[in-house]
Amino acid sequence: MKVTPWEVSGTIDYNKLIKEFGVSKLDDSLLERIGKRAKEKGLPLHHLLRRKIFFAHRDMKFILDEYDKGDHFFLYTGRAPSGHTHMGHLVPWLLTKYLQDIFDVELWFQFPDEEKFLFKENLTLEDTEKYTRENMLDIIALGFDPKKTHFIVDTLHAGLMYKEAIKVAKKITFSTAKAAFGFNSDQNIGAIFYTAMQAVPSFLPSILKKRKIPCLIPHAIDQDPHFRVSRDVIPKLGHYKPASIQCRFLPDLSSRGGKMSTSVAEHATIYTTDSPQEVKKKINKYAFSGGKDSLEEHRKHGGNPDIDISYQWLTFFEEDDKKLEKIYHDYKSGKLTSGELKAILIEKLNIFLKDHQKKREQAKKLIDKFIFKTH
Amino acid sequence: MKVTPWEVSGTIDYNKLIKEFGVSKLDDSLLERIGKRAKEKGLPLHHLLRRKIFFAHRDMKFILDEYDKGDHFFLYTGRAPSGHTHMGHLVPWLLTKYLQDIFDVELWFQFPDEEKFLFKENLTLEDTEKYTRENMLDIIALGFDPKKTHFIVDTLHAGLMYKEAIKVAKKITFSTAKAAFGFNSDQNIGAIFYTAMQAVPSFLPSILKKRKIPCLIPHAIDQDPHFRVSRDVIPKLGHYKPASIQCRFLPDLSSRGGKMSTSVAEHATIYTTDSPQEVKKKINKYAFSGGKDSLEEHRKHGGNPDIDISYQWLTFFEEDDKKLEKIYHDYKSGKLTSGELKAILIEKLNIFLKDHQKKREQAKKLIDKFIFKTH
Repeated sequence: MKVTPWEVSGTIDYNKLIKEFGVSKLDDSLLERIGKRAKEKGLPLHHLLRRKIFFAHRDMKFILDEYDKGDHFFLYTGRAPSGHTHMGHLVPWLLTKYLQDIFDVELWFQFPDEEKFLFKENLTLEDTEKYTRENMLDIIALGFDPKKTHFIVDTLHAGLMYKEAIKVAKKITFSTAKAAFGFNSDQNIGAIFYTAMQAVPSFLPSILKKRKIPCLIPHAIDQDPHFRVSRDVIPKLGHYKPASIQCRFLPDLSSRGGKMSTSVAEHATIYTTDSPQEVKKKINKYAFSGGKDSLEEHRKHGGNPDIDISYQWLTFFEEDDKKLEKIYHDYKSGKLTSGELKAILIEKLNIFLKDHQKKREQAKKLIDKFIFKTH
Repeated sequence: MKVTPWEVSGTIDYNKLIKEFGVSKLDDSLLERIGKRAKEKGLPLHHLLRRKIFFAHRDMKFILDEYDKGDHFFLYTGRAPSGHTHMGHLVPWLLTKYLQDIFDVELWFQFPDEEKFLFKENLTLEDTEKYTRENMLDIIALGFDPKKTHFIVDTLHAGLMYKEAIKVAKKITFSTAKAAFGFNSDQNIGAIFYTAMQAVPSFLPSILKKRKIPCLIPHAIDQDPHFRVSRDVIPKLGHYKPASIQCRFLPDLSSRGGKMSTSVAEHATIYTTDSPQEVKKKINKYAFSGGKDSLEEHRKHGGNPDIDISYQWLTFFEEDDKKLEKIYHDYKSGKLTSGELKAILIEKLNIFLKDHQKKREQAKKLIDKFIFKTH
């Protein structure tokens, strides 16, 4: 198992990650407190929380305690533009949108367009510029409040960010970066510096508003090394330690572990811009099945939903617990075939994507509203 | 002997530096060509060139060849604001002013206000902001053409510079930076990245004007490691390799070698804001003398101007060769006493500083004209 912000491989043991990274399990008392706030807005506890897809955190209690006192946090998440958006990317954003809705707070969304440029040999800044725009459409399409959501793009907002980044950078040695990210001496000096830029949005609103504001970062667990390093530094600059809430990876269509990553299997990745036919073809061809070798065997012994990727994906995208439970049992009993299970996922995704793609088109007119204006 | 952009110590052997750094000696044929251009403007060859205080270069022939073809270069130099300006800082700027005058070219003047912040534990960004302004006054006071001179301040112009810096940074490994600057693993990641920001002004005008423009950097030799590294990278980004013309250090008042550095002996440093009394006191107290122990001995055997700091300083600031030669011989013969020699330097500096301080006051109204406007 390898989990860094730039590489996730092997079978992921999330309990081991909790120990290695030093994060805390998201326990029921915290979920209850979030659920209480959701209820006030007429919403249930989000299925990504109910199902512990968001499974870990740092300082969530602090965030909720402060909120109870009237000290509202802001949300911060991001996307390093290096390709089109796929379904895995949406997971933390979906929860972020939910958290914005129930807590009615600001979101600062970072597009670190230099990150993948610095880490990927062949990626150009023209590529990242194109993908920044493409990725923005997907984020806007999820329905974030334009009045409370600010996009910051590292190369575009460096005039604001660089001065803050050097304050962070001054307090991080190469040794520390090396230990956290596994760098060696062949690493380029931009990549080494980069983590300082990723730290900035966690306190930039406090700088701009000239008061300490708590920060909550929903993100996939692979980004934790950045915040593990910056959490040691940021309080020394006079700000709160950023808190975080961390999710598992949407598994690769073709694998039983790890993260869905375009660098691993591009052809087996479902993009938000895929047509219904493409979605159908990819899932039928690549989604690893927990079914038996023959229909007869399957009917007799049933399938294994715990390793079936289509079922796993439904735990991420099917909100209805009862539907999901029925699918689980029907598949386990053999009543539901692997083909039928795939068909359920295909339909679910295509319904979502049809609506998403419509909103994505409408988003083209809205980009400018979301980009943070420095003057 | 140690010469890095952040530390100069020991007795400097300039011939050894030429070999170690791989720069070229500034030979007579190059000086002749510069002198020819000077003559066209009714000016002599600058005494800093005549006396080989500027003693080394990289690619000066290329710069002059291109100029002859009508392809005019721009000048780039800088000042990392970490304290008040002292006489040593003025040396490269005086030649830069002269080169702007005789070649009638643009100057891009960088204030890398993050540099010393990143390299000096106790320096704050409030300090560097204050010194940036103070240092700007000295540069303006030297008479640079406001229409052809652009100040860029790293934290202020990062919106323009960071995107270019990451292109450079991607092509410099930690190993390379380590070898050039002597970094170890305790170095902070901002300091490691910094050299990429220092590279940017050498091609920024080419980016802004969308054509390849040659760049000439007058600087003290200790800055060479930055450009040695970036010269390997910049052509790969589609720009000319920056050329440079490099000077010796104004020696410390109290020493016989090395660079005048405020970090070594602050009390023995002459600042551009010093009063005539302070200048007098510091030179009388600290300027190392090449004279004999008693007046009688001095009259009999004469002094040694080659190790006398007051005489050495006059080679930097007394433009008149004949006057200087007379001082040399009178001191060597014992006709001129050490006290009298010091008095000559004191008078020379105080005349210069009186005028400089007047212009420095007037410069306060001009700062805004010099700062490069990005929009």
